[in-house]
Amino acid sequence: MIAVIKPEATEQQIEGLVSWFQARGLKTHLSEGEFQTIIGLIGDTSKVDVDLVEGLDIVESVKRISEPFKSANRKFHPRDTVIEIGGYKIGGGNFQVIAGPCSVESPDQIISVAESVKASGAALLRGGAFKPRTSPYAFQGLRSEGIELLLEAKARTGMPIVTEIMNAVHLPLFEHVDVIQVGARNMQNFELLKELGQVKKPILLKRGYANTLQELLMSAEYIMAEGNKDIILCERGIRTFETYTRNTLDLSAVPVLRDLTHLPVIIDPSHAIGVSRYVKSLALAAVACGADGLIIEVHNDPQNAACDGAQSLTPEQFADLAEGIRRIRKVIETL
Amino acid sequence: MIAVIKPEATEQQIEGLVSWFQARGLKTHLSEGEFQTIIGLIGDTSKVDVDLVEGLDIVESVKRISEPFKSANRKFHPRDTVIEIGGYKIGGGNFQVIAGPCSVESPDQIISVAESVKASGAALLRGGAFKPRTSPYAFQGLRSEGIELLLEAKARTGMPIVTEIMNAVHLPLFEHVDVIQVGARNMQNFELLKELGQVKKPILLKRGYANTLQELLMSAEYIMAEGNKDIILCERGIRTFETYTRNTLDLSAVPVLRDLTHLPVIIDPSHAIGVSRYVKSLALAAVACGADGLIIEVHNDPQNAACDGAQSLTPEQFADLAEGIRRIRKVIETL
Amino acid sequence: MIAVIKPEATEQQIEGLVSWFQARGLKTHLSEGEFQTIIGLIGDTSKVDVDLVEGLDIVESVKRISEPFKSANRKFHPRDTVIEIGGYKIGGGNFQVIAGPCSVESPDQIISVAESVKASGAALLRGGAFKPRTSPYAFQGLRSEGIELLLEAKARTGMPIVTEIMNAVHLPLFEHVDVIQVGARNMQNFELLKELGQVKKPILLKRGYANTLQELLMSAEYIMAEGNKDIILCERGIRTFETYTRNTLDLSAVPVLRDLTHLPVIIDPSHAIGVSRYVKSLALAAVACGADGLIIEVHNDPQNAACDGAQSLTPEQFADLAEGIRRIRKVIETL
Amino acid sequence: MIAVIKPEATEQQIEGLVSWFQARGLKTHLSEGEFQTIIGLIGDTSKVDVDLVEGLDIVESVKRISEPFKSANRKFHPRDTVIEIGGYKIGGGNFQVIAGPCSVESPDQIISVAESVKASGAALLRGGAFKPRTSPYAFQGLRSEGIELLLEAKARTGMPIVTEIMNAVHLPLFEHVDVIQVGARNMQNFELLKELGQVKKPILLKRGYANTLQELLMSAEYIMAEGNKDIILCERGIRTFETYTRNTLDLSAVPVLRDLTHLPVIIDPSHAIGVSRYVKSLALAAVACGADGLIIEVHNDPQNAACDGAQSLTPEQFADLAEGIRRIRKVIETL
Repeated sequence: MIAVIKPEATEQQIEGLVSWFQARGLKTHLSEGEFQTIIGLIGDTSKVDVDLVEGLDIVESVKRISEPFKSANRKFHPRDTVIEIGGYKIGGGNFQVIAGPCSVESPDQIISVAESVKASGAALLRGGAFKPRTSPYAFQGLRSEGIELLLEAKARTGMPIVTEIMNAVHLPLFEHVDVIQVGARNMQNFELLKELGQVKKPILLKRGYANTLQELLMSAEYIMAEGNKDIILCERGIRTFETYTRNTLDLSAVPVLRDLTHLPVIIDPSHAIGVSRYVKSLALAAVACGADGLIIEVHNDPQNAACDGAQSLTPEQFADLAEGIRRIRKVIETL
Repeated sequence: MIAVIKPEATEQQIEGLVSWFQARGLKTHLSEGEFQTIIGLIGDTSKVDVDLVEGLDIVESVKRISEPFKSANRKFHPRDTVIEIGGYKIGGGNFQVIAGPCSVESPDQIISVAESVKASGAALLRGGAFKPRTSPYAFQGLRSEGIELLLEAKARTGMPIVTEIMNAVHLPLFEHVDVIQVGARNMQNFELLKELGQVKKPILLKRGYANTLQELLMSAEYIMAEGNKDIILCERGIRTFETYTRNTLDLSAVPVLRDLTHLPVIIDPSHAIGVSRYVKSLALAAVACGADGLIIEVHNDPQNAACDGAQSLTPEQFADLAEGIRRIRKVIETL
Repeated sequence: MIAVIKPEATEQQIEGLVSWFQARGLKTHLSEGEFQTIIGLIGDTSKVDVDLVEGLDIVESVKRISEPFKSANRKFHPRDTVIEIGGYKIGGGNFQVIAGPCSVESPDQIISVAESVKASGAALLRGGAFKPRTSPYAFQGLRSEGIELLLEAKARTGMPIVTEIMNAVHLPLFEHVDVIQVGARNMQNFELLKELGQVKKPILLKRGYANTLQELLMSAEYIMAEGNKDIILCERGIRTFETYTRNTLDLSAVPVLRDLTHLPVIIDPSHAIGVSRYVKSLALAAVACGADGLIIEVHNDPQNAACDGAQSLTPEQFADLAEGIRRIRKVIETL
Repeated sequence: MIAVIKPEATEQQIEGLVSWFQARGLKTHLSEGEFQTIIGLIGDTSKVDVDLVEGLDIVESVKRISEPFKSANRKFHPRDTVIEIGGYKIGGGNFQVIAGPCSVESPDQIISVAESVKASGAALLRGGAFKPRTSPYAFQGLRSEGIELLLEAKARTGMPIVTEIMNAVHLPLFEHVDVIQVGARNMQNFELLKELGQVKKPILLKRGYANTLQELLMSAEYIMAEGNKDIILCERGIRTFETYTRNTLDLSAVPVLRDLTHLPVIIDPSHAIGVSRYVKSLALAAVACGADGLIIEVHNDPQNAACDGAQSLTPEQFADLAEGIRRIRKVIETL
């Protein structure tokens, strides 16, 4: 970390600041330029509050040099993390498609969707039991019953299942769930993240719609700091000024996260764009971009879906997309 | 709600859509223009999924006409909500200042800050016990011990206290807390909101840094739908592309929310701007704008604060600000 | 257009509003619901100021139903526009790559880059002569001399050239330029757009980094309204809160614009991401997404480029990318 | 400027980079930490392309230490710039209100508005002759005739006038205009800025709706670098995700710009919020915040205004606002 000192600071003030840093266990390195004095800080700066230092009277600005995330940092763990879920691998060159309805609605619905997406090549089944909805008057999911239906679909098809948790007190219900999803709105629900750090299951961590990639990695760090290292990062669209689309899918997350972290990165084009007829283009783009996987909403009857039908593909549309994914993936593997 | 139909839709398709709406309990009103056919929907449209309808093949766009919030809506409750906390009123022309440190750190610190802000005219004491921090390696608050220290400060000074909850399982610790705060990162933690709807205490609900005013009102609605009507809304800065400030304080929230809702609206300039030397300007602006209150960070020793010292005022700076607030407030009351 | 009336409006006020609309040449259609009165407006509403009507005392909100762009609207011109440039077609299934340096620097540089990108399959040569730079102290381009060098490169290689205009008074210099580019910062320089509407050359119109897709189409409309119908739209990244990347590439622009307009849409991944090692991923994603073309920065010596070297590929990197583009494009053509 | 080197860089690569910097006339200062090597750069770094250096293989990140603006920088010109316009001073403790209609429409309109705002205490008259409109089908202003009408109003009332320029070729028409305004959409029309640098009149430079404060200062720098030092900066709302307001007024611009620059800063609440009934709150907030002035839209008949009537105050509403401004200003002057 580097603190740039204001030109008007007195020598005494600078000495005071140096002592203050040293009292926090940091070594300092003073560099006096013609116009600018800089204090370099060496040691564990992850606990220094950048904003506080920046607010001090004699400090002009503070620049963090090393990233504040450690366990998730590729620098310290250069090799790709590969996560295995019920026989399917994701990360390190292994690509998987997760598909299923936004909400679990009935045994027929979830089993029929599961069978059809499996036939088209999806590895994992997704389905919402606990649903975060903007309005308290909207459908909130089948909750524990929804999880039972997912487990039934798993039993029938052999597909591992992915479903979202909204409250750590529900954890016992997730015992046989294969991957626990943290939704965008809970990406900084730190209490929940800490509890998921104690769990021995992969976590699918969605980027908040207004969170930076660094914040996403810091949230992964919360889970990893408690011991759980199996995290799948998921970009699902960020909030911008554009109104034609629900959110703006930020595909640059794929190459940038690949640089910063060893964790697998998947893309959710359905929630990002919010309109089913645009999902295919973005899904293929995500594959071409080098994502480790996709999570796609599929519903047997989108027009009557309990939620987010607008962005769901029919099983037929998904089969068509899956064929495109396979073909683009084949090109990507050899580039 | 209005659905605009694509020009190429056949009569049969339009009839199908009309029946589909009617099956959802809505009355329809068909209006065929020269270029455009429109279906008006009458009835309880709060459960209709706008995105789903918009995604249908023959629908060009959907426009919601009535707001999706009810309990918080000024249309249905024209009179200002006035909330009383330990003898202090907020809303409906009553203005209050909440002040205190970001984090509770020690008995001496919290009592000394409480006494000084009380002397300058603050009504309520704030202080963080449970702290949401971006990094798992940063100070997480004194947690239950912090609440005890706040209660001690309350006993000593008589000031009602405001502190943040991060997890509903901690509710028993909040028994003697006067106002429970929901932080920006938890504004859409719907599970938490539902539980706070059962509590008989005022809730200070902060706007998420990437949430619209309508989403803020929908989150208030989550609490109100469960029975708790005492909600104080708080604008604390939104995330934009600007990097000189931590967030961008959106003061237009004050007059706009005044139009939309009967709930009191307060402003947190400290978190918005993130730099103590800019807090005074923005605090005075908030008063001039017509806010019902302010929440200000004050620390007896900002440079050694455990968190967010950068934005904290000293007790002396707060006394100076409080004088300005009083004088602007006096003008505003007579305009 | 639809105006939603406030519940408290009197009959007399509503009548007054209806007359006001009629005085503007619009037919009105009054629909009185249980809770809500709505006035539908039929006729040429493109001249009605939505914000003004929305600001009227008795009006709650106004919803535009038809898009405000006409010449660019696919509804009125369902067939794809195909633009021909020196024998190369773009749009309507025809895909082209435009490549070259950010700035033209010397005869050697531009000719060497042109020859190498042509050898790898680029159709058009790009190069900046007039450079919009944030700082007045940064290199501003070779200006007229730069255009001469581009023309020399065109003469040598036969490649049509694309270069940016910043001021209509420079138009005579562009006589032999094949495609005139309007940069992101000038997307709403309406005076310039009007003059380009008089020109008989294709215009490459870049989306402003904070402009919506509708605003992009309205800017195209400015050019088309003056008679020039040959416009290539270009998405080049929008401004968001993310700081790891220069801008956020919005690939959803491709399928959305395909829906809204008949004009070709190309992608500029170099400016969007700003870092050369991420360009390949995003370029391939753009192809998979269905873009009609790419514009890529290539420099023979990026480390010594006069501007934007950070995002430039070397000729070798471009050759590798071009191979990937061809292979993905082959898949896309058959999907 | 500081370049942080990647841990894997070899000594030879670092030496190469050091030579590369030195070849650009910069002195370097190498600091090798336990984990991190840093190269400090001393000299005129304003011409170094941060993005380029950041894109180099062995560079992890680059931090600029000194601001890239000079003439506008308070560090080098600590005293407030005071601009005098027809006997009225702005800046350095002098506060002025500029008022008038969005567009000049007729002699009666502009003279009647001018007389009424003057009577309420406005110092300068604003009015648009050249209008930047999103749609080519919307009213584009009376252009040269509009300027003549403004001059007539100036002759009648003695008020100095402010009006917007969209094209440098119109400069001769602005000979008797007192202040030339650059609109938000032209803030980065660098060709226009350069020409305004040659003019001997104050320039009112509006912040682009998606531009940072630093970019605003860089645009001021473009004008100042050519010799014109009389620039009034104007914040008028930035683009965010919020949809209830046209833009989000960023009042933190006032204290932050006060820190960074010596130029006066005024606020345009009318364009920011876009709805007349919210203008008063925000205007008073701007005064309390310490702005050097306000620019307010006033129209004698907002409902029939040719443009932006929604945000215009009536002369009566303006008189009421002016009284509030005076009273808040009185408090601010003594704080």
